[in-house]
Amino acid sequence: MTFEVTILGSSSASPSYQRHPSAQVLNILERFFLIDCGEGTQIQMERYKIKYHRINRIFISHLHGDHYLGLMGLMSTMHLQGRTKELHIYAAKELEEIIDIQLKYSQTTLRYPVIYHYTNAEKSEVIFEDDQLTIETIILNHRIPCTGFLFKEKRKPRKLIREMVEKYNIPVSALHAIKSGEDYNFNGKMIPNNEITIQSHTARSYAYCSDTLYDERILEQITGIDMLYHESTFTHDLIERAMETFHTTSKQAGMMATKAKVGKLLIGHFSARYKELNTMLKEAESEFKNTWLAIEGETFSTE
Amino acid sequence: MTFEVTILGSSSASPSYQRHPSAQVLNILERFFLIDCGEGTQIQMERYKIKYHRINRIFISHLHGDHYLGLMGLMSTMHLQGRTKELHIYAAKELEEIIDIQLKYSQTTLRYPVIYHYTNAEKSEVIFEDDQLTIETIILNHRIPCTGFLFKEKRKPRKLIREMVEKYNIPVSALHAIKSGEDYNFNGKMIPNNEITIQSHTARSYAYCSDTLYDERILEQITGIDMLYHESTFTHDLIERAMETFHTTSKQAGMMATKAKVGKLLIGHFSARYKELNTMLKEAESEFKNTWLAIEGETFSTE
Repeated sequence: MTFEVTILGSSSASPSYQRHPSAQVLNILERFFLIDCGEGTQIQMERYKIKYHRINRIFISHLHGDHYLGLMGLMSTMHLQGRTKELHIYAAKELEEIIDIQLKYSQTTLRYPVIYHYTNAEKSEVIFEDDQLTIETIILNHRIPCTGFLFKEKRKPRKLIREMVEKYNIPVSALHAIKSGEDYNFNGKMIPNNEITIQSHTARSYAYCSDTLYDERILEQITGIDMLYHESTFTHDLIERAMETFHTTSKQAGMMATKAKVGKLLIGHFSARYKELNTMLKEAESEFKNTWLAIEGETFSTE
Repeated sequence: MTFEVTILGSSSASPSYQRHPSAQVLNILERFFLIDCGEGTQIQMERYKIKYHRINRIFISHLHGDHYLGLMGLMSTMHLQGRTKELHIYAAKELEEIIDIQLKYSQTTLRYPVIYHYTNAEKSEVIFEDDQLTIETIILNHRIPCTGFLFKEKRKPRKLIREMVEKYNIPVSALHAIKSGEDYNFNGKMIPNNEITIQSHTARSYAYCSDTLYDERILEQITGIDMLYHESTFTHDLIERAMETFHTTSKQAGMMATKAKVGKLLIGHFSARYKELNTMLKEAESEFKNTWLAIEGETFSTE
């Protein structure tokens, strides 16, 4: 029942100390979603054993280079490896133009279809939905149009206990109501639902919020989620610099996690000025205890 | 009297085994020239301690992504680090459009001037010249327009031996001819030039040839140079694949070095199919003994 994110890059705009720019892979029940794709993402994927062909949907938060410059190279490698499967890209519409001009001048026709889904940085929208999950944009507050992404599993129906279905001779027509949680009327005696069913796994959720000013308007969407990645470009002594550049401090990331009552906080997008990150971690932890540094190569689950 | 090249990337189009796409830095007397700039070049520069601000001229062979996709990120980092110095880029003219569209959508105005020098893939030209060196394009034979680059130091005038200038009481008017190698007529007696002068350092040369079919038309330019980098994407059993894709085999790279009577051969641009590279090396060495693998992080000089 996998629901976990692997960090491929945690650096902000200027990579340093061998940290790479933003990229992470979310694995939900062995479906892999690539979130942002900074320069070097394909090499990081190889390093951390994430197969290119497992990626079918890529989400780009905004068009600052440290969030998308690895995409063209990854798309080329998928092409050279013989991919024929559709690739879905969720991004600002201008990204399509950036990719197309590069394909044109390299005289490359991709062997696989690319389907662009344009994000709207003015209004949160559901951009993907199937029977397992929904993916919504989160409106962030950055220097250029920028969206985060919220991945939510759907609540699953309860599972029937086969022996009980037989014991009470439950007809097929009653099963739907029971799976959705209702008790069962057996010859006038109410049988409690939890005697006939067990719970399926809990619906889990993950929000990716980079890059942004501290902005509580996102609370409406992220409150109560299991795991939040929030950018933390600076320590709080540089709050003014954070505000000028539309970024967040580690203290503010911790405050956001507390207000949103999330289960776990990951912080990343570290400025090149920080060689060691413990100060950042301590600062965020002082606001929200269950905080983790989004170190490259590490995997975090909602458990 | 430095004249050496440091390899930052040696992979062909799909990076693998943690090899990076093409990039190298040529250091001529502490002037640094970046040749090709594949994805991840800025991280490789940081790894091998090459300062971004030392790079003033960048040479891009062609517009396949594995040769230029690191440029936008490097240019952004130079901007963020406060660069104000001019940056010169030698490349196909379409690269300017690719860079400009990305600057536009990231709403970035670089703090430093970028000066594009368009290369012509039809005709070899001197694209840079000063009192120390000339840089020429080499016309390569690839699927899309592609040029190599030939860096040649100028022959230096011979150095005067001060004691001899005094001994023979040589007038200033005669110095120019003596420095260019002429003997000196001292009261009717010819003084041999090598008694009055010593040789300056030899003019050194380096050619970068990637990507290309094996094509002997380049011999005219590269014959007798000190050091040749020639692509070697495949081993010779894959000669047909090499020809289909406009690449060269390691055996052919060795043949080219022998025909061109170069001092030293570096081979690189290794296909993702080769985990270990000794077979390639042996194959090239069987044609040209002084062959070296362009391993990332290694530095090669003309000596």
